[in-house]
Amino acid sequence: MPEFNAPLRDMRFVLHEVFEAPALWARLPALADHVDADTADAILEEAAKVTGQLIAPLNRSGDEEGAQWQAGQVSTPKGFKSAYDTYIEGGWVGLSGNPEFGGLGMPKMLAVQFEEMLYGANSSFALYSALTSGACLAIDAHASHDLKSTYLPPLYEGRWAGSMCLTEAHSGTDLGIIRTRAEPQADGSFNISGSKIFITGGDQDLTENIIHLVLAKLPDAPAGPRGISLFLVPKVLVNADGSLGHGNAVSCGSIEHKMGIKASATCVINFDAARGWLIGEANKGLAAMFTMMNYERLSIGIQGIGCAEASYQNARTYARERLQSRAPTGAVAPDKMADPIIVHPDVRRMLLSMKAMTEGGRAFASYVGQQLDLAKFSTEPQEQQEASALVALLTPVAKAFFTDTGFDSCVLGQQVFGGHGYIREWGQEQLVRDVRIAQIYEGTNGIQALDLLGRKVLANGGVTLRMFTAQIRDFATQPGKPYASELLEAVQRLEDLSDWLQARARVNPNETGAACVEYLHLFGYVAYAWLWARMADVAQRSLSADPAFYSAKLATARFYFNRLLPRTLSLEQAIRAGSDSLFELDAANF
Amino acid sequence: MPEFNAPLRDMRFVLHEVFEAPALWARLPALADHVDADTADAILEEAAKVTGQLIAPLNRSGDEEGAQWQAGQVSTPKGFKSAYDTYIEGGWVGLSGNPEFGGLGMPKMLAVQFEEMLYGANSSFALYSALTSGACLAIDAHASHDLKSTYLPPLYEGRWAGSMCLTEAHSGTDLGIIRTRAEPQADGSFNISGSKIFITGGDQDLTENIIHLVLAKLPDAPAGPRGISLFLVPKVLVNADGSLGHGNAVSCGSIEHKMGIKASATCVINFDAARGWLIGEANKGLAAMFTMMNYERLSIGIQGIGCAEASYQNARTYARERLQSRAPTGAVAPDKMADPIIVHPDVRRMLLSMKAMTEGGRAFASYVGQQLDLAKFSTEPQEQQEASALVALLTPVAKAFFTDTGFDSCVLGQQVFGGHGYIREWGQEQLVRDVRIAQIYEGTNGIQALDLLGRKVLANGGVTLRMFTAQIRDFATQPGKPYASELLEAVQRLEDLSDWLQARARVNPNETGAACVEYLHLFGYVAYAWLWARMADVAQRSLSADPAFYSAKLATARFYFNRLLPRTLSLEQAIRAGSDSLFELDAANF
Repeated sequence: MPEFNAPLRDMRFVLHEVFEAPALWARLPALADHVDADTADAILEEAAKVTGQLIAPLNRSGDEEGAQWQAGQVSTPKGFKSAYDTYIEGGWVGLSGNPEFGGLGMPKMLAVQFEEMLYGANSSFALYSALTSGACLAIDAHASHDLKSTYLPPLYEGRWAGSMCLTEAHSGTDLGIIRTRAEPQADGSFNISGSKIFITGGDQDLTENIIHLVLAKLPDAPAGPRGISLFLVPKVLVNADGSLGHGNAVSCGSIEHKMGIKASATCVINFDAARGWLIGEANKGLAAMFTMMNYERLSIGIQGIGCAEASYQNARTYARERLQSRAPTGAVAPDKMADPIIVHPDVRRMLLSMKAMTEGGRAFASYVGQQLDLAKFSTEPQEQQEASALVALLTPVAKAFFTDTGFDSCVLGQQVFGGHGYIREWGQEQLVRDVRIAQIYEGTNGIQALDLLGRKVLANGGVTLRMFTAQIRDFATQPGKPYASELLEAVQRLEDLSDWLQARARVNPNETGAACVEYLHLFGYVAYAWLWARMADVAQRSLSADPAFYSAKLATARFYFNRLLPRTLSLEQAIRAGSDSLFELDAANF
Repeated sequence: MPEFNAPLRDMRFVLHEVFEAPALWARLPALADHVDADTADAILEEAAKVTGQLIAPLNRSGDEEGAQWQAGQVSTPKGFKSAYDTYIEGGWVGLSGNPEFGGLGMPKMLAVQFEEMLYGANSSFALYSALTSGACLAIDAHASHDLKSTYLPPLYEGRWAGSMCLTEAHSGTDLGIIRTRAEPQADGSFNISGSKIFITGGDQDLTENIIHLVLAKLPDAPAGPRGISLFLVPKVLVNADGSLGHGNAVSCGSIEHKMGIKASATCVINFDAARGWLIGEANKGLAAMFTMMNYERLSIGIQGIGCAEASYQNARTYARERLQSRAPTGAVAPDKMADPIIVHPDVRRMLLSMKAMTEGGRAFASYVGQQLDLAKFSTEPQEQQEASALVALLTPVAKAFFTDTGFDSCVLGQQVFGGHGYIREWGQEQLVRDVRIAQIYEGTNGIQALDLLGRKVLANGGVTLRMFTAQIRDFATQPGKPYASELLEAVQRLEDLSDWLQARARVNPNETGAACVEYLHLFGYVAYAWLWARMADVAQRSLSADPAFYSAKLATARFYFNRLLPRTLSLEQAIRAGSDSLFELDAANF
């Protein structure tokens, strides 16, 4: 049975050493009083225990048993309810929630580490509270004070859970064509009718109530995405005093049978004139929902990192223990029947690829967390606005690049095991199945790429992009920084391509879609190069303090620059090939 | 429920038009009399019916039910036995078998098309006879006339099946350390004792008998791979008249629970002083087994193509039917609520990537089939030897490149479906799970890459490689060939890198392992470039005869050269980075 141990040393490295988060927290009034380096470390250590000892042991059994649906009720696998109760007692669901309504108000930079542990330990379990955190964010940002004070406290406590109801059978990426309706009632509430699919945690037996955030159309709403409103629809109606009342007209029609995340219930949820309340303004529901969506996108990105870290830990252990063949340069364990497979160059290539991408991803997630904290807590308007813009730019990269490369890492981690990687008991194949969904849900990675290139880069003429690349240039042009010339070359490539695409897309609207996936990957590799250079910079300076730890960082950075960053060359060529060769073929001749 | 339709038109294109197989068959005496273009087409059409109508419909249900093990007996999923009986009546198992013992003696170029259909229809089902064909090949090549005449006819008929027993719990890649023993008996037979794992079709309820080909060590055999012998061990002993006698001391201890190919029984097989007979010479079993292994390696490569083709067919249908959002250049189906997603550049990129790699793979498999036919049937010694050398060179490329890119294609085909791709009922996720094993079994793709670069390229100073690249140069330097300059540049890159690696590997034995996976991929992309140029050449000349079909070939070739071949740039950079950055890290510091 595979174990999961949160990579605490690596997380502290990123948090304290690379980003010097405690110094940032100290200067932000909303954080200064209740988080410092020691608090953060204590939280991370406790989180490591909860995820490693309580939640990870349910990962395999949860996959075997799966969520079950019977007579309209979902039951989670054995052990989930009891573990969930212990988990919420720790206050984890409200970790970065609004303290006014019972949240703990912790910085996102810390929360992203916790999320990584949670997904690494058990992606299915993680999802039951991930949606709650996102729903809280949307409620906190857009709902009335009444709704907030009624719903946020039990949600932060984890006694209630949240869900996100967007997709319908005919409408996934294209939300403009949803059919769910909302009829205004005399008391200011709405009757919601329609059927939603793919609702993660749409039903379960872990919480007393489930608060669905539902996209629906008001009568006479304009067609398309500008006619969508957001509603809060509880599974169980809530009395004025906050106690639970009657059941609402919300039912779970079935659950999906899926490739992975089998312990997470993916539900069909039917609303039959269910009572709901408007969140934010009428017809502006999509924007309000995006508060939740953007949160979930980063969170799902982090699923990619968490699963990759889990796969890496297993593969590393196996590679050190499995004896097979001799090292090319001669036996290293002549007393044994064969050498551990970690002596083989190709096994090392696989492990280092996983390690470099996972640690690069962790640093990137922490950087996005830092920008989220600045966007939320900074008292300087310009800093706050720049951080918001960077979050908008980087969220699609985080979601898609973490999960595309996280999937690749899980596949590599399975490959290290040879035939044993294909067998269920070792857990490596489950990670591949579980992480695969992260490339698809919360907006497919193709949609993330379109969002990045079309909306976040080209639509504002590359202004935000330049804000980001300026940080990279600023680092690389300081004296004595490692990999400075490689970094400047990489960032130049990204800027040149962006300019080139800006001109091309003006002439042909197909160019954005033709280039976007490769562009997002190229963006990701350049961003990781910056983060690896920053990590190497810290490691270089700290080397003597802990040579084993810091020299591993330096070696991984070198591997990244030598073997992974060159992928940008091919990506550039594919982008520059343009859209023409995609459109020579009639749909009928495929 | 997904359908599978054999791509007959594409297969005929490759067979008749690109490789002009009928002309080759006509000049080879062993083939001239019993196969021509019409026979081949009739066989392919019949094969399409059997695979599409009989075998494909059992793919989903076979996955849901899986192979079962109870009290030492394996049962295959519902419908498998009856379909298998019908299947073997068609004589398919002996399609390219030796006519002297009841095989049909058909060319391998034809058989590879059939294998692709079989894997595309149902990989689990395909495996039950794929191992038989490989076992026949090894028996035919190395066993005594007595063993051949006893065992080959019922194997070719499919009444009996074959299995390949190599792996033991502690010994997979490293066969030198196997522990299974063979004790010589007075009557010339051997008592085989040991336990083998991961035995595909090691037990089942489809055939009367199972003929295990087992690697074992004779008493006093030399240590390592030079002390391994190959034995034929039937599940049921065979009387002198060919009828079935007593059960042998062979038992199935359990079956594995796997990520995919669930309807294929992967068995632990225990031999307890089971009677067996030596195949070939003592201590030369590995070489004899490689006759089977090489067959299986190509076959498993073709699994990659078959699954990718199935995934492509489903994704194409879905992309034409699923309505979602509008084309970037304006609505193409203004009367519908949205456009079919095939209008979106990124969906086309995914489909074209699949199409280009699958058709490139089919052409490559056919080329290897052609060389196998020349190696077996040519009457000119030089042609025969060159073909044998090319087969040795290209087999690891076929196995690993077909399956690595086949896996990628299946992942893309799942992605086209968005959330629906993750749901079991659509079948796309099963293809991902089923094809994944093909990168692992029959020698992991890392081992294939080592075999290619170390044994097949560097060990003979690039002589065979030059034989292959000379064919590419020969094509590209003929007047008027399409993509000639791109091809010459690509082949130069492959040759230069090979020379560079030759020099490096002499100095540092780690260089081969450090470069081999990227080298194999680069080799694959260059080979496909040649094949796409050849296909484009034919299509150009035939365009007016069927513009829709041939223009699709030209468009796909252009896509391949524009968007996929540039991957060689990054692969080259990664190769040239060398092995140093793989060895900076101590095993303890990973």
